[in-house]
Amino acid sequence: MGPQVLIIGAGFGGLRLAKRLGKLPVYVTVVDRSNHHLFQPLLYQVALAGLSPADIAVPIRAIVHRAQNTRVMLGEVTDISTAEKVAILADGTQLPFDYCVVAAGAQTSWFGKDAWSAHAFGLKNLDDALDIRTRVLLALEAAELEPNPQRRQELLTFIVIGGGATGVEVAGTLAELSRTLIARDFRVIAGDRPRVLLVEAGPTLLAAFHPDLQQAAIVQLRELGVEIHLDSRVQDITADGIVLAEKLIRATTVVWAAGVRAQPLAAKLGASLDKMGRVMVQPDCSIPSHPNVFAIGDNAHFVQDEQTLPGLGSVAQQQGEHVYRVIAADLRNQKRPTFRYVDKGTMATIGRSRAVLQAGNIRLTGFIAWTAWIFVHIMLLADFRSRVLVILEWAWQYVTFRRGARLITGRPVTHSEPEALHLGHTVAEKASKFTVDTPPPAA
Amino acid sequence: MGPQVLIIGAGFGGLRLAKRLGKLPVYVTVVDRSNHHLFQPLLYQVALAGLSPADIAVPIRAIVHRAQNTRVMLGEVTDISTAEKVAILADGTQLPFDYCVVAAGAQTSWFGKDAWSAHAFGLKNLDDALDIRTRVLLALEAAELEPNPQRRQELLTFIVIGGGATGVEVAGTLAELSRTLIARDFRVIAGDRPRVLLVEAGPTLLAAFHPDLQQAAIVQLRELGVEIHLDSRVQDITADGIVLAEKLIRATTVVWAAGVRAQPLAAKLGASLDKMGRVMVQPDCSIPSHPNVFAIGDNAHFVQDEQTLPGLGSVAQQQGEHVYRVIAADLRNQKRPTFRYVDKGTMATIGRSRAVLQAGNIRLTGFIAWTAWIFVHIMLLADFRSRVLVILEWAWQYVTFRRGARLITGRPVTHSEPEALHLGHTVAEKASKFTVDTPPPAA
Repeated sequence: MGPQVLIIGAGFGGLRLAKRLGKLPVYVTVVDRSNHHLFQPLLYQVALAGLSPADIAVPIRAIVHRAQNTRVMLGEVTDISTAEKVAILADGTQLPFDYCVVAAGAQTSWFGKDAWSAHAFGLKNLDDALDIRTRVLLALEAAELEPNPQRRQELLTFIVIGGGATGVEVAGTLAELSRTLIARDFRVIAGDRPRVLLVEAGPTLLAAFHPDLQQAAIVQLRELGVEIHLDSRVQDITADGIVLAEKLIRATTVVWAAGVRAQPLAAKLGASLDKMGRVMVQPDCSIPSHPNVFAIGDNAHFVQDEQTLPGLGSVAQQQGEHVYRVIAADLRNQKRPTFRYVDKGTMATIGRSRAVLQAGNIRLTGFIAWTAWIFVHIMLLADFRSRVLVILEWAWQYVTFRRGARLITGRPVTHSEPEALHLGHTVAEKASKFTVDTPPPAA
Repeated sequence: MGPQVLIIGAGFGGLRLAKRLGKLPVYVTVVDRSNHHLFQPLLYQVALAGLSPADIAVPIRAIVHRAQNTRVMLGEVTDISTAEKVAILADGTQLPFDYCVVAAGAQTSWFGKDAWSAHAFGLKNLDDALDIRTRVLLALEAAELEPNPQRRQELLTFIVIGGGATGVEVAGTLAELSRTLIARDFRVIAGDRPRVLLVEAGPTLLAAFHPDLQQAAIVQLRELGVEIHLDSRVQDITADGIVLAEKLIRATTVVWAAGVRAQPLAAKLGASLDKMGRVMVQPDCSIPSHPNVFAIGDNAHFVQDEQTLPGLGSVAQQQGEHVYRVIAADLRNQKRPTFRYVDKGTMATIGRSRAVLQAGNIRLTGFIAWTAWIFVHIMLLADFRSRVLVILEWAWQYVTFRRGARLITGRPVTHSEPEALHLGHTVAEKASKFTVDTPPPAA
């Protein structure tokens, strides 16, 4: 009888660990609240209609189905008793374990302003992304029917809060989308100038990157027409827009990419947490006093060379790999390895044909960085099928400037719908305008 | 100034008409409740995780964007005044027209038993399809955690009501999915035998097909393990399952493919309707006394050779083409053509490698019919992009027996969720079972 390994979360860290453990004499249980592994770095592409959910999400069962020692459970762990070595599901069910690995990932952090979540979209899972897609597409449809220029401008104003990689990627892609899609597919708003604002509280974008690349990102975003507001802390978010420096900027769509914090489960381990809710882990990623309980990825605060490791998929993956080595060492009664993160480089894309990339002393910008970004992301995608589909989608979009997944589906977004999105209320005025303005082609 | 043509609905009929009118000296307004044209014949593939929504849906704007005389509106027409030549949107807005074409399609008909819609899924739009996908995938996940064999059987029982093409396609695909997916990706239920029931009130499946093909469909479905109940009228549908011949058949998933009726808008034209809510149209598809108001596709009751034309995409398309010819004739002051439907054949697919097809005196079954079905459907897909993606998906699935879009997403289905779907409540029992039953591989 091998030990029971419980992995909570099938993100980059948990999944890597599960795959590796398939070859060891252990029992593996993977519990996740969703049935799929999500390739989060491309989530913004789903939010902006460039990719379909199935392009970046793969069923967890499909990934580990060959490992006969591994089972997958759809469910939510709500508590963990490290003393009794048992995890507890939402309904009270108990899951005993010999090893427990908390790899539950992060959630959107509103920095204590939870009321803002009623007016702005986070971007952490597929439902978030589909909500943003629906809102952006509906805003364009509503603007097309809106004769009042001021209200039309509100509908065509998109605000992105947070100047990290996600914020930069969303803002760049939104600017590009508004440039091409509106000009081609719409009639009334084709002449309007949509605004995309990127708001960052700190003095620079992409704080984790080299200053040269930060500057390159700003230049590239401005080429796309993005209005960048640095040193600008959001004071309020309402149904009308955001308040910045005591002034209301009216906007229908606000995306919040300003921060994340660990899933609350990490707090149940009884260990010290940092401000982002991450567990202060030992050099082998275990928690103090419980050598068989681990926290990895966005659930771990790991200090290396006096720096806290960032919340990147590559950190989580390497920590998942590391926990596999720890368990393998335990099984052979060998000394446990300590964890060391190897930075293979980071990158961010800025719309079509633009990106920034750093790897060691190498720094790239523009088209060459973008090409590298595409290559790396396709290599990282979880299975071959996604890879082929994404290559195809991107090739198609590159050639045609079109976005493939512009669908408005789903039940109404739980957010308060701005008044302006109630479609059809001004169609009559618009109708007469259309009749007058647009001569039909000659017979 | 050309006349204003209002097209209500961008299905097969409305879209064909809109595309053709792009070349005439008229103003065209296309109003639809959704922003996309849906390739309905493949909707069941989305419901059963074989295709993504974006594979079979294309933004209406993208299809007609080149025609400068055409505008697209997202909105719902709730009333039409044929006397005043104006259509009225949900908010009271008025849209004047010179020509009006009702091409609003059909909706699920519950034959007066609307309460059944709380326990069974219709299949008419993308949201329906995604609801079915979520339910089927959740049922498998819940069954995997369910130790009680009887409740597990309920979760693994799928009932399809209605033996037309949609019912046959759903049942066949469900049977296939349960054969391959469960066996490979699941542990506990891998040995269970899922049931797929196909229930039809009439004496035969596929009533519109030649008796030889009806028989072939029955044989092929039985090969896939589908239990076929003919001459069986459903007496009730509850949260527990369906009642057939005074007996309750317990099932968690019930799909209703038994009937459709025209969208209620057709009733606003003031013309006579048939039992399915379709307008009794003239030989040129216009309605009596209003030569410039047309109903086509699922909104028209058209009699040809003493037979009512069926609710097929090809009928709608040809009627859309016909209305274009009528308007073109009017513009030239020529005599209007009358409509005549040319049957180019019908087909239904039955899972992997099986289908039935008839075209004139040609009747095919099995693999050759399935190949023809694939070819025809790919040719019919609305644009090149969808075609490439669908070919790729199908090739992938054919080679690997996998289904690409097995994602559980979205907010909870509005349906009453059966108790059994509350995941996790029996995980503990299952956990111990797993430990005992499954030896880990040797180190």
